[in-house]
Amino acid sequence: MILTVTANPAIDVTYRLPELRPGQVHRVRSVSRREGGKGVNVARVLHQLGEPVTAVGFGDGRFGAELRAAGLDAEFVAATDAVRSTLVVHDEVRGATSLWEPGAPPRPGACDELLDLVRDRLGRSSVVVVSGSLPPGVPHTLPAEIAALARSAGLPVVVDVDDDALRTALERGGAVLVPNEDELERLAPSPDVDLHGRARALAARNGAPVVLTRGAHGLLAATGTESWGVSPVRAVRGNPTGAGDATAAGIALGLARGDDWPVLLHRAGCLGAAAVLSPVAGEVDLIALRDLLDLTPTIEHRR
Amino acid sequence: MILTVTANPAIDVTYRLPELRPGQVHRVRSVSRREGGKGVNVARVLHQLGEPVTAVGFGDGRFGAELRAAGLDAEFVAATDAVRSTLVVHDEVRGATSLWEPGAPPRPGACDELLDLVRDRLGRSSVVVVSGSLPPGVPHTLPAEIAALARSAGLPVVVDVDDDALRTALERGGAVLVPNEDELERLAPSPDVDLHGRARALAARNGAPVVLTRGAHGLLAATGTESWGVSPVRAVRGNPTGAGDATAAGIALGLARGDDWPVLLHRAGCLGAAAVLSPVAGEVDLIALRDLLDLTPTIEHRR
Repeated sequence: MILTVTANPAIDVTYRLPELRPGQVHRVRSVSRREGGKGVNVARVLHQLGEPVTAVGFGDGRFGAELRAAGLDAEFVAATDAVRSTLVVHDEVRGATSLWEPGAPPRPGACDELLDLVRDRLGRSSVVVVSGSLPPGVPHTLPAEIAALARSAGLPVVVDVDDDALRTALERGGAVLVPNEDELERLAPSPDVDLHGRARALAARNGAPVVLTRGAHGLLAATGTESWGVSPVRAVRGNPTGAGDATAAGIALGLARGDDWPVLLHRAGCLGAAAVLSPVAGEVDLIALRDLLDLTPTIEHRR
Repeated sequence: MILTVTANPAIDVTYRLPELRPGQVHRVRSVSRREGGKGVNVARVLHQLGEPVTAVGFGDGRFGAELRAAGLDAEFVAATDAVRSTLVVHDEVRGATSLWEPGAPPRPGACDELLDLVRDRLGRSSVVVVSGSLPPGVPHTLPAEIAALARSAGLPVVVDVDDDALRTALERGGAVLVPNEDELERLAPSPDVDLHGRARALAARNGAPVVLTRGAHGLLAATGTESWGVSPVRAVRGNPTGAGDATAAGIALGLARGDDWPVLLHRAGCLGAAAVLSPVAGEVDLIALRDLLDLTPTIEHRR
């Protein structure tokens, strides 16, 4: 079972409008709401692939009901009065306008309860994934602490976070990190070295692999001594929201199965592309996924 | 006790942003949520004035908790999974951008439960106010049915609704209606007659008074035979959201007290202006209200 941890989940709200006009009043005709957040999206994709998964995190006493109704195992610490919303206004003229609420600080003691919940589930887990931002008031050490729990139970752990939380996870080491190129640049500015070399240096500092996500340029995995780059097997256009989470799901799945890096990267890349082809974050286009997986990737291996 | 009925309540959500840019991603720094909806705003204003008030309507099992915590009597039929949001994005560049969700259809039987709830509270009520839009799936006869219940209990009732619900309330008659000039035009197009005459004709058709809300031009009350116009005692600038609800609260209060129309209109107009001077819908600026009430209004009386 793969365990996903979401410290800052969200209700993904989607409005559809003919045109968003700042300063005006709009009557919204179509509204959809869905439990989301990065770790929740990872869990949804794994569940869609038939993989046993448990989603945990901070909630409000109600959050998780929709996931459970969809057949996922989900348990969220009642930490706030209400889970934040992340609103996307889809407009036929200007595309998607996004408004991300920051989230509310969890009540005192909630962080310890989340650590207890993770600890409780480790015995049944094969891999742990910690994804997404932290709500206000949560120490940026939390993802690294969860990673340390998982590592001490002998489990691989994927930490897909950014800013201070990413920096702390790197300092503590031992978790598979999933930075993008901007984050790599901030963590390890060294413009003279090529990307493979920089990723290997970062993995060496991290004491664990690093998977660099490069959008339309594919993925690059590095250990301290070797690295593998994979380009997309096919260019795709669509909805990029949630593509990174589908990629993280692929990394977790590869670690759970003990795949070689080329196999893991190909599947993770195809999952990201199949998520772009799905209109909803937290879902992949399964038919497209099958077609993409059948293509032969070009893997660049360096050491 | 004044009873307010809100069939389509809302969580009023306010985002503050430097600038709303269609097509872009925004991290919202400041988020506030508040139980609202037109009848709820009427109840809040009456409560602020120290008037005993009960707020009823359709809710989701949670809606009303914030009102009760603020000291109001509130009971909402658990009719939907979640109460809709009405979002206002305040932006330093373009002002207020509003996005109104339509609301969800109440579950079967919820309309009868609301009528029972109103019936149950009539014995303790002096006036009933029915305000605001109807959620999808609710017959537009509902406000008129609530008004008929109140009338049969011998109570005055204010119906502040629009479109089909307003038209039906007028056909059934007997409730104090609160149209604006556009609504008057749709209900009784007769451009050759002056506004006082048109309002008196509408009140005669209605078999009950009509209060025409004219924004910066004030208020005009009419029975079938007499009419009174009042201009604002002072021009105000600010937040017009909820000003109509404060005016409706003033009308209800005047009916509860058996005030003459000039007294009722002056207070209702001052309440609307004091609401414009408050940054939050459902609140009036009490200090400004006192000053406004001390001014002497000019009342134009015709018959």
